[in-house]
Parts: sequence; structure tokens; C-alpha cells
Amino acid sequence: MSPRERRTLDGGRARDSEVIEAAIQIFWEKGYSATSVQDVADALGMLKGSLYYYIDSKESLLDRIFADSHEEVRGIVDEVLGLDLAPLERLHTFVERLALWYLTNVRRASLYAREWRHAGDGLRGQMLEQRQYYDAVLLDLVRQALAEGRVTLPEGGERIAANFVMSAISSLPDWFRSSGPQPAIVVARTYADMTLCLLRAQDDLGVRSAVSA
Amino acid sequence: MSPRERRTLDGGRARDSEVIEAAIQIFWEKGYSATSVQDVADALGMLKGSLYYYIDSKESLLDRIFADSHEEVRGIVDEVLGLDLAPLERLHTFVERLALWYLTNVRRASLYAREWRHAGDGLRGQMLEQRQYYDAVLLDLVRQALAEGRVTLPEGGERIAANFVMSAISSLPDWFRSSGPQPAIVVARTYADMTLCLLRAQDDLGVRSAVSA
Repeated sequence: MSPRERRTLDGGRARDSEVIEAAIQIFWEKGYSATSVQDVADALGMLKGSLYYYIDSKESLLDRIFADSHEEVRGIVDEVLGLDLAPLERLHTFVERLALWYLTNVRRASLYAREWRHAGDGLRGQMLEQRQYYDAVLLDLVRQALAEGRVTLPEGGERIAANFVMSAISSLPDWFRSSGPQPAIVVARTYADMTLCLLRAQDDLGVRSAVSA
Repeated sequence: MSPRERRTLDGGRARDSEVIEAAIQIFWEKGYSATSVQDVADALGMLKGSLYYYIDSKESLLDRIFADSHEEVRGIVDEVLGLDLAPLERLHTFVERLALWYLTNVRRASLYAREWRHAGDGLRGQMLEQRQYYDAVLLDLVRQALAEGRVTLPEGGERIAANFVMSAISSLPDWFRSSGPQPAIVVARTYADMTLCLLRAQDDLGVRSAVSA
């Protein structure tokens, strides 16, 4: 019987989620490589043997965290794509909701960025695919917004804009602290507003480049 | 006599820079932790003993790479701050030049982002300080641009904007490939143009948020 089956029979879902949260916290503090199953057990005040009731290995714990994060973000993307919105509104909503996920899951998202190399082989491939999928969705939303005509970019600018925005969103956990001056929802909304503004990247403030090509 | 003194007497600066470039390449491919001094020696077609003529240890090699990158970026920042430019032009030049450094030093910059934890204790502190210094410079340039009055942001928006832009710049090595459709200078200039556009992040396209606060 696998740990997941045991958990189900046991009805131990609350404890299971405590295990996951403790692992996120300790992987985030110490780094995945430097963390042992014993560390996770200690953080939970559990014997190592008891922890194996919930997990197969340190690797499976990380994979589980990644797979969960994955599923959550995928859910957000699919939901936004399903909404009946004009292109620019859809883009705004996509950026706002994705940013909000990163802002309310800072440790989980950091772990994803820092430790993806340690994911199991199959999962790592899936993670890369998903990341490419989100990039493609964002690029497509930018293209639709441009096609609609309320915004314009210089030729080839849509790829640069999509990368600009996606990098900024994925780096949110590097600087955002929930104790900071702005709440997550304000930051997420400002990111979405800034994204739309960025799609009018004509050099129309009369600023000329000081760097020679 | 330290390796650096030996190198100077030997006049081996060209070979020294080959050692650094080989180390950047191999740390980038395999990751710092998984790389041995033997790997670097192999990449150079050198005996490990001969490599120690140029370096003290694997740690000192990484520190040297970081210290060099550091000095280059610091030079760019100081140069831009010394230019006689209006605030918005200075901000544009700052983003363009910094982005261009990341775009022309993709492996070096990735290494910095991925492996900073492995820097020696003293150096790690310096690296963090420098990063905070660049963040502060960018925030200050944004503030000056706002004070000048050609751009406006909602209250508190300057901190969000500075983080948005700095994250996007530091993530350039994650997606930019010199073999891609746009040359580095075009990407750097577009980033700078987009930064100025982003500083007009009023919701003036009539887009309303679909996410409730």
C-alpha cells in the first residue's frame, strides 16, 4: 500500500497537509539539498518512522509540492481562458490572477524557481512543458490584444513584452513581503495595469537612446 | 606566493582569463556543486596540478567570477549616474545599459543568480549590498522621473514599478538566446522603452479588474 493510499484509508488529510507545509517551510529555509527527512520530522515533532507513513522519500515530498503548485496554477490559467472577456481585459485578468498566486504562495513559488532541478525526471519534463505553456498563453494574449487594436508595439515587440511580464511575475517572491507597505492584491493589480501600459512601448516621450547600436 | 602574484610574475593574463571563461562555462552546464576542479582542468586540457597555479580552490574561482561581474556592473551604474541627462533619459539609459550587460553576459549573469549562495561569506554580504544598491538606484531614478512630471504613477507605484523592471532585467538570461530573432541591443532598448511606458500605469484604457479585492 502506498503512503497516499494509507493516508486515504486513515482519513489523515489534515496531518498530510501539515507535512507538506512543514516541508515547504524547511526546504525554503535550508535549501532542498541540505534538508533531511529527519529535519522535516523534527519540524513536525514526529518520529522519522512516523513521517514515512505520509511520504515515500524526500524526493517524493518535493515532487508532491511541485505537482500541487502546478495544478493550482494550471487551474487559474484554464479559468481565465474560459472567461468571456475582450482580449485586453483577458490579459489584465491573466496577469492579475497569476501574480496574485505568486504573491500568496511566496515560499511555494520560490521553491519552484530555486529547486526545480531536483524534481524527478518525468516531473521535471512536465514542469518545463507547463512553463512553456504559460509563456505561450501570455504571448497569445498579447497578440490578441494587439490584433484588437487598442494597443500597439514595435515589430517583434510582443515576444519581448511577454518575456518582460512573465519574468517580472515569476520574480515576485524574490522581493514581495506580506508585511510590506502594499497588500498582495494592490501589487497584483498594479502589475496588470503596468502590463497594459507596457504594450504601448513607442518611444513617444521623446526620449532617445544614449547607447549606440 | 598567492596564485594571483604568481600569475602577475608569469604574465599569464590571457591563460588566466581562459581559466575563468572555462569555469563559467562548466559551472553553468553542470552547476557549481556538481563541478570539481578536475572538471575545470579537463575542460582546459590541463593537469589539475597546473590549474592550481592559477587558482587557490573551486571556491576562490567562483568568488573571482562574482567579483569580476560585480565590478563590471558597478562600473556601468557609476557611469550612468555620472552622465549629464534629464531624469527620464537617465532612467532609459540605465535600463538599456544594465539590460545590455545581462544580455551580453548570459552565462555569467545566470551563475550569479543561481549560485550566489555558494559565494564566500564576506563576498555574499557584498553581493547582497550591491543588489540593494542597484535596487535603490533604480527606485531613485523612477522617483526623479516622477518628480520631473512627464510620467505619473498611482501612489506607492514607484516601488512596484522599480521591482517590476529590476526583476525583468535580472531574468533576461533565463530566456534570451543570442541566436534568437532580436539582437541584444534591440531587446535592451525595448526594455528601456517599455520601462518608460510602464510609468504611466493609470488604468486609462478603460480596463476594470475582474478580480475582487
